[in-house]
Amino acid sequence: MKLVRYGNAGEERPGVLLEDEVILDVRAAVFDIEDYDAHFFSHYGIARLESLVREKPGRTVRRDEVRLGPPVARPGKIIAVGENYADHAAEFGRPPPPEPILFSKPASALAGPEDLLKLPGKPAEIDAEVELAMVIGARAKNVPAAEAHNCIAGWTILNDLTDRRAQRTCSQWFAAKGHDGFAPLGPFLLTRDELPCTPELDLASELNGARMQSGNTRTMIFPPDRLIEYITLDRGITLEPGDVIATGTPPGIGAAQDPPRPLAEGDEMVLRIEGLGEQRLKTAAATPQSPRT
Amino acid sequence: MKLVRYGNAGEERPGVLLEDEVILDVRAAVFDIEDYDAHFFSHYGIARLESLVREKPGRTVRRDEVRLGPPVARPGKIIAVGENYADHAAEFGRPPPPEPILFSKPASALAGPEDLLKLPGKPAEIDAEVELAMVIGARAKNVPAAEAHNCIAGWTILNDLTDRRAQRTCSQWFAAKGHDGFAPLGPFLLTRDELPCTPELDLASELNGARMQSGNTRTMIFPPDRLIEYITLDRGITLEPGDVIATGTPPGIGAAQDPPRPLAEGDEMVLRIEGLGEQRLKTAAATPQSPRT
Repeated sequence: MKLVRYGNAGEERPGVLLEDEVILDVRAAVFDIEDYDAHFFSHYGIARLESLVREKPGRTVRRDEVRLGPPVARPGKIIAVGENYADHAAEFGRPPPPEPILFSKPASALAGPEDLLKLPGKPAEIDAEVELAMVIGARAKNVPAAEAHNCIAGWTILNDLTDRRAQRTCSQWFAAKGHDGFAPLGPFLLTRDELPCTPELDLASELNGARMQSGNTRTMIFPPDRLIEYITLDRGITLEPGDVIATGTPPGIGAAQDPPRPLAEGDEMVLRIEGLGEQRLKTAAATPQSPRT
Repeated sequence: MKLVRYGNAGEERPGVLLEDEVILDVRAAVFDIEDYDAHFFSHYGIARLESLVREKPGRTVRRDEVRLGPPVARPGKIIAVGENYADHAAEFGRPPPPEPILFSKPASALAGPEDLLKLPGKPAEIDAEVELAMVIGARAKNVPAAEAHNCIAGWTILNDLTDRRAQRTCSQWFAAKGHDGFAPLGPFLLTRDELPCTPELDLASELNGARMQSGNTRTMIFPPDRLIEYITLDRGITLEPGDVIATGTPPGIGAAQDPPRPLAEGDEMVLRIEGLGEQRLKTAAATPQSPRT
């Protein structure tokens, strides 16, 4: 099943993307599924949607007539993993890390999979990173890798946009990766029944039609089940329904090009993961900053 | 006004701590204030509480008969600032940073101000850090320092507990600072009308009765109003109602003692900030890990 959220930013409605590029309006069909949030995942929301989809009742909208938002609402946390592909770590001239390098992005950075990215008004070198992301479906504490699959609601694409300039000047990456709009998520959440816990998926990105990143998720240093074990058991961090974990990026980023190629006004990027659809990122110049409180 | 949340972990109710160490039960008095969350702060919750307190209607409970939880529910993000006191940076042998070092702690790490800290079962060197924290009261985007005060709901204490061992072995601090229970918050949220935006407050910690940290918030390198400007304007990260910003810690941490003094089983720490009350942290051995999903 492919879960989407559609509508204006901040007002998205939950839907299910059906085979024929139409979206089932979930809120119109089920009175008490308000959104794809912690409550939904922890109250058998996906199982209830499965029954609904089998019967296919109610209103639908066409996918190409609506904006898609991130397929998860208000995740409690977004954890990301640095240098999790050996060949990507090598791009920075570094050996593979002995343990996962965890950092986080704020939920306020989330964007839809085709939203326009306004480049920051300050000096910056913005780079895209295509990543396989998992969404947590059940509270996970001290979970061994062999049981990790039970905690996953599903899979999607996260673009871990990063300001390389800020990343060079500060030891901690939060500021470089936390800007509004720096976490496009989607287009859809593919429920876990449709993928194994250690999926082997091609992933790639293109900048203005030219190939940038490419890889396969099988070359991750720490695969998804080990990441869940590491976070919840080795590090004692409880994962909660709706949390997002981005699993790292393969080689080919803009900063590793010769010369480096940060995003510029008018660029168009496509990020693609086998079976998970694609994101399309267009960039625009910064708008003049005006205070808003 | 002093806002508290009280009751069992995960089931806290909103209250107001009155002069005489009793807590006004807000939910019993106002039917539609469910909790101190984003909705509360963005819908004039504090102003409504002020009218309520003037009239002092309804049920109260005694403070010493209830557990206190963190005074904010489900913050969208917790941003913390590294090395924000020049004398603390010097403890690590480092010059003051040219820009704020931002990192984040997950909301799943929150704990009440007197909750027992179960030490991790893995090798770790846990250290406490007393910090002035601000809670955001209104959506803040591109906010200059001169207007920052309008975005603040109030002030409280955050203990930025840190595993120095994990901090040494990983470039990014999220894992070292994200363990469940590593963010005790409280005891109360002091509303902003009772403090200036650049407060000058003594802050200190004691371990088993002996002084550890001491300082005054006036010696911050980047004061609260500048931090809000840096986050929202320089870095383009929107702050949302209920978000927490911890402003860094003064010198005297355990890792800077000679020899270093990590927390051990049975320790008792007191963390204190002038006007914001105190936290009392007791530690216990780790419980054997059992999977729970």
